[in-house]
Amino acid sequence: MINAAEMVVPDALDGLALAHRELRVLIEPAVILRADPPRGRKVALVSGGGSGHEPLHGGFVGYGMLDAACPGEVFTSPATGQIMAAVRAVSMGGGVLFVVKNYTGDVLNFEMAAELAAEEGIGVATVVVDDDVAVEDSTWTAGRRGTGAALFVEKIAGALAERGAPLWAVAEMGRRVNAASRSFAIALTACATPAAGRPGFDLPDDEIEIGVGIHGEPGQRRDKIRPVNELVDIAMQEILGDHDLAPGDETIVMVNGMGATPLIELYIAYAAVARALAAKGLGIRANLVGNYVTSLDMAGVSISICKADADMLTLWGSPVRTPALRWGC
Amino acid sequence: MINAAEMVVPDALDGLALAHRELRVLIEPAVILRADPPRGRKVALVSGGGSGHEPLHGGFVGYGMLDAACPGEVFTSPATGQIMAAVRAVSMGGGVLFVVKNYTGDVLNFEMAAELAAEEGIGVATVVVDDDVAVEDSTWTAGRRGTGAALFVEKIAGALAERGAPLWAVAEMGRRVNAASRSFAIALTACATPAAGRPGFDLPDDEIEIGVGIHGEPGQRRDKIRPVNELVDIAMQEILGDHDLAPGDETIVMVNGMGATPLIELYIAYAAVARALAAKGLGIRANLVGNYVTSLDMAGVSISICKADADMLTLWGSPVRTPALRWGC
Repeated sequence: MINAAEMVVPDALDGLALAHRELRVLIEPAVILRADPPRGRKVALVSGGGSGHEPLHGGFVGYGMLDAACPGEVFTSPATGQIMAAVRAVSMGGGVLFVVKNYTGDVLNFEMAAELAAEEGIGVATVVVDDDVAVEDSTWTAGRRGTGAALFVEKIAGALAERGAPLWAVAEMGRRVNAASRSFAIALTACATPAAGRPGFDLPDDEIEIGVGIHGEPGQRRDKIRPVNELVDIAMQEILGDHDLAPGDETIVMVNGMGATPLIELYIAYAAVARALAAKGLGIRANLVGNYVTSLDMAGVSISICKADADMLTLWGSPVRTPALRWGC
Repeated sequence: MINAAEMVVPDALDGLALAHRELRVLIEPAVILRADPPRGRKVALVSGGGSGHEPLHGGFVGYGMLDAACPGEVFTSPATGQIMAAVRAVSMGGGVLFVVKNYTGDVLNFEMAAELAAEEGIGVATVVVDDDVAVEDSTWTAGRRGTGAALFVEKIAGALAERGAPLWAVAEMGRRVNAASRSFAIALTACATPAAGRPGFDLPDDEIEIGVGIHGEPGQRRDKIRPVNELVDIAMQEILGDHDLAPGDETIVMVNGMGATPLIELYIAYAAVARALAAKGLGIRANLVGNYVTSLDMAGVSISICKADADMLTLWGSPVRTPALRWGC
């Protein structure tokens, strides 16, 4: 449902600007900002990445979360110039934190922007998110891919920045959240990019891709479709096997739809996740069930678990007011 | 992504209860209630309908909106006994308002429940929602189908009930909102029910169904896929042609994904809707862009326009705290 492949991002930004007066949206270069920016020396949070994962990241711009998001073309890294436009727009003297999902292009372009910002006297720290336990290296990544934990990092570090913490502390918290988070995804269908107009890979109706990435990158293996409780068990084994969770630990849980999964099915998956955690003596202190980190029209689910300490839980519960995440204010 | 067709609703209710402590969820009969019900003689709002349209209606239970939702099996009306269980749970002496989408089974079962409630001394009024301008009669409907305006009615009448208005006034407001609302939907793909496991109708890759219903019921005609701006123009012509909107009027607009439409595409559609309204001299005072009234995994968009007077706008802006709609508190 587009007008033309090359118009997807500008057309969508046009709609985003019209729908959300609380945002200021630049079309060229593409940057999403708060219409009513904070004052003082608050650390500014900037994120970005390829489009097609909405509401990530533009839907998380606002009080208590991001100051700016840089949407690239669909599944394409944002350009360094675009990131610099965001940096200049949001820099308030307290420095800038980049939240970057671990994809080679994203990491490179944000790194270049950090160097350019330093030349302009703007201090930048970076949190690279790499929470996806499915594969060690992937199509577009050296090391683990960054997926759902980007939301955890943006929310929790964003709340700390809103409280006036300095850049080193906001960055440190972002890294702690990433280190405490693990994700795993299973796809039932491929997704079709606007440019291609057809699914990016071929997945038979009765097969699933286990450990899929958010661009449809291959995972660990293919298997036959099976009951969702078994799919969740596979994902939870991968997550818990890689995590240092112990009975009595508290968690924040996200059961995330990848774009074409009915909400009713996400709640079925959530029930299975909650049971798996309870069986290990783990508590869930907060949860999100819905479409937060999508892959266009891919059917599937990703599960993200953050082992949350008391600081993280307080910051998670702090007020947030963005198009896609909103509570407490 | 299910365990078994007959377990879809109970499994999902299990997850809903675990995810949302602010809800009280009964599994048998299936009823979703507020965990912390209001006190006093507040008019109670009860809605319901087939499952598969989430977050409608269970996601709209909470302060400022519904007191109870009755989810039927997928695409199946809730039973009269189920509706009565909801009525008994929420009746506070101020009477009960039923919000019913116009499908024959839903209307019949809610009518029977209203009669049974009257025998128990509980006053019930009903708002039948019939906002879909696409067809006069349809597979499961005499008269127009009820779709997106259910959300408008539940939000606005719910806010009035929260303020302590009597049943007649809450019902009157609900009917005014329905009468002021029009919707139209276009599908790019069919949806697959859990029981069938395959799409409910056959729609070639390059064709669209214009005027589709929320269960995949046929619309006005099929056509070739075309740019989204043209699809929106078709929908807006149908809506505006049936509406009594005049330059200077204010509206509430929903651009709703039917389950498998990427959010980025919904924003593209919203830009086109906003332009179409501006061209007619119509204002948009509030908007929703996202998945609110879905049809399982159908790809497509529905557009709903409510001509909103000052009372409706005030009530729309009033605080609401539900899983799927939340602002002002």
